[in-house]
Amino acid sequence: MDLDDFYAIIPAGGVGTRLWPLSRQARPKFLYDLLGSGRTMIQGTFDRLAGICGEGHVVVSTGQRHVDQVRQQLPKLGDEAVFAEPVPRDSTAAIALATAVLSRRHGDRIVVGSFAADHVIRDDRAFGRSVRQAVAAARAGYVTTIGIAASRPSTAFGYIHQGPSLADEIPDAPDAHLVSEFVEKPDASTAQAYLSTGEYRWNAGMFVMRADVVLGCLKRYLPELHSSIMAIAEAWDRGADERQEAMEQYWPGIQKIAFDYAVAEPLSTAGGVAMVPGGFDWDDIGDFNSVAGLLPSSGRRNIKILGDSDQVVSLDSGGDMVVPDGGRTIALLGVDDMIVVDTPDALLVAPRARSQEVKDMVGKLSQYGRDDIL
Amino acid sequence: MDLDDFYAIIPAGGVGTRLWPLSRQARPKFLYDLLGSGRTMIQGTFDRLAGICGEGHVVVSTGQRHVDQVRQQLPKLGDEAVFAEPVPRDSTAAIALATAVLSRRHGDRIVVGSFAADHVIRDDRAFGRSVRQAVAAARAGYVTTIGIAASRPSTAFGYIHQGPSLADEIPDAPDAHLVSEFVEKPDASTAQAYLSTGEYRWNAGMFVMRADVVLGCLKRYLPELHSSIMAIAEAWDRGADERQEAMEQYWPGIQKIAFDYAVAEPLSTAGGVAMVPGGFDWDDIGDFNSVAGLLPSSGRRNIKILGDSDQVVSLDSGGDMVVPDGGRTIALLGVDDMIVVDTPDALLVAPRARSQEVKDMVGKLSQYGRDDIL
Repeated sequence: MDLDDFYAIIPAGGVGTRLWPLSRQARPKFLYDLLGSGRTMIQGTFDRLAGICGEGHVVVSTGQRHVDQVRQQLPKLGDEAVFAEPVPRDSTAAIALATAVLSRRHGDRIVVGSFAADHVIRDDRAFGRSVRQAVAAARAGYVTTIGIAASRPSTAFGYIHQGPSLADEIPDAPDAHLVSEFVEKPDASTAQAYLSTGEYRWNAGMFVMRADVVLGCLKRYLPELHSSIMAIAEAWDRGADERQEAMEQYWPGIQKIAFDYAVAEPLSTAGGVAMVPGGFDWDDIGDFNSVAGLLPSSGRRNIKILGDSDQVVSLDSGGDMVVPDGGRTIALLGVDDMIVVDTPDALLVAPRARSQEVKDMVGKLSQYGRDDIL
Repeated sequence: MDLDDFYAIIPAGGVGTRLWPLSRQARPKFLYDLLGSGRTMIQGTFDRLAGICGEGHVVVSTGQRHVDQVRQQLPKLGDEAVFAEPVPRDSTAAIALATAVLSRRHGDRIVVGSFAADHVIRDDRAFGRSVRQAVAAARAGYVTTIGIAASRPSTAFGYIHQGPSLADEIPDAPDAHLVSEFVEKPDASTAQAYLSTGEYRWNAGMFVMRADVVLGCLKRYLPELHSSIMAIAEAWDRGADERQEAMEQYWPGIQKIAFDYAVAEPLSTAGGVAMVPGGFDWDDIGDFNSVAGLLPSSGRRNIKILGDSDQVVSLDSGGDMVVPDGGRTIALLGVDDMIVVDTPDALLVAPRARSQEVKDMVGKLSQYGRDDIL
């Protein structure tokens, strides 16, 4: 199957506050190599997508302040492939602007896919197969999501409830189903119930769709957002001055709304959303516990080390997640199942079980006016 | 009572490995302000002793490599008041050399007292009263120790078993007793038994004695050590060359033995050791748990901070001992009763309950050849 009509959008936003003090406002998590793989999150995402649609078909939406770092990490990114946001306006605006501009450049029958810059996908070939089916379903007119097999009753993700098969309707997407509904992050017992039906998958926020379809949806559901985006898109390729003028005029006033709420959920009730299964390991590495789960063991009682393991000396300790990023030796004595993240200007110590609450620490530091380390 | 004949010796040795990574071989614990009092341990010790016998009567025995730092911290220390040891030979040699040299300078009827550079004493007036009684007992011919009231059944200290009163024999030492015996660090139940008798006190290693008495003991018990020390002492004040020559010839071969074993224990069985009670709070701050016990609470759920408390941000944490000495912010989330010691090149994390085992971590780092941070 030819993918000449497919373009990948990488929304690179989100600080990743639960990964503080590694992740910072000035250097969000997508700029880090959180797996010790030698490639940062956004580099891994770019590589994976470029392998499917070619480097020239990948664009990035990110904050103005991160553009230089993104370009530095992705030297093969095209000159016109970065959408810089002066202020964040959430995922709908990011996806809509890139889609509208690409649509003007390449025609509105192109298929766009949105894939976050800071997710981990382990099996590029399986990912590619899912994307191909998603593109086929998108060409058939569906906004198509890739549903991740729920390997545990997680309460950290939203779920997708799968409806009837679309295999007959879309021969190139034999595993596609209609989406019956999107459901919010459940409590533990609800999550368990979802799993037992076999009909639910995790919503990883990956969407593949024809440009005219998604822009049509936006025009219908959010006409103001749509008209602002179209106005910016019209000016986008008419030179730096016109682009900047349009951005200044329209961008700050655009509604902040997640793509799930703006498009996926309402459209799913109208039978317009499809899902293809993702047959690959996926993680949004939202916190240090996730990072620990993805890192190989250091061989020392399951201590996970992100960085130079020579910098960590442990005695009677196990199950810890250690980030020696401060250039100093970290000595752990009798320390079990803790997070120790050392950076040049801030150190975090917490139990692994409280990984999610790191965002509360960030909140507290913010209250204290400690923007110097946030 | 006149104390013109009294000289104080401060043996400043001992790295304090259980206080790593704050205390280092190149910068032992006596050079630190472990109480946040504004004075380092050796400064506090010097001040306390100078208040009793005058600055000119205080001398320091320390390692050659620490001499500059000691002089920097103690600008009032006399030119000839430092005994620099090229290699450590334990407390007997240190005390003997200083005693022999002082004895040649001021006569062998002087009284010398040995007080470690890294102990904490809270009540200088009570300490002074104990020293005065000890000097009186020393003049009467006893090697005299100051016994600390055992406030708990500690297994970290040796104990002194008190014998009959010497009040009648020494009117100026009304609280003095003979020492019946010195006993090693006991196990917990033995320590409890000691306490219940009311006859045992902690051995803090403070000894006050006439120069001729202690040198006589050494001649009797350790004739080789004695003759080497006397040879060095004879050369000591004959110029730098002769001093160095004698040190090179005799010092490295001197037996390493603690003063307790060399003098106090054997002499006590011969009825030659007295004890006066120390009516003051004392601690050898051997580990971070001790430091924590001596620091005031930061007001945040009993978190103890040695350093700038603005550098510590805690959330749902309590009972921790934190040393922010690395110039960075330390964030504690859900961390209870832990030690977190941050320095520019090394970080230690451990439960407070395992403070004593910090020395094992130092041992491990030494095995790894990490002398750069020891």
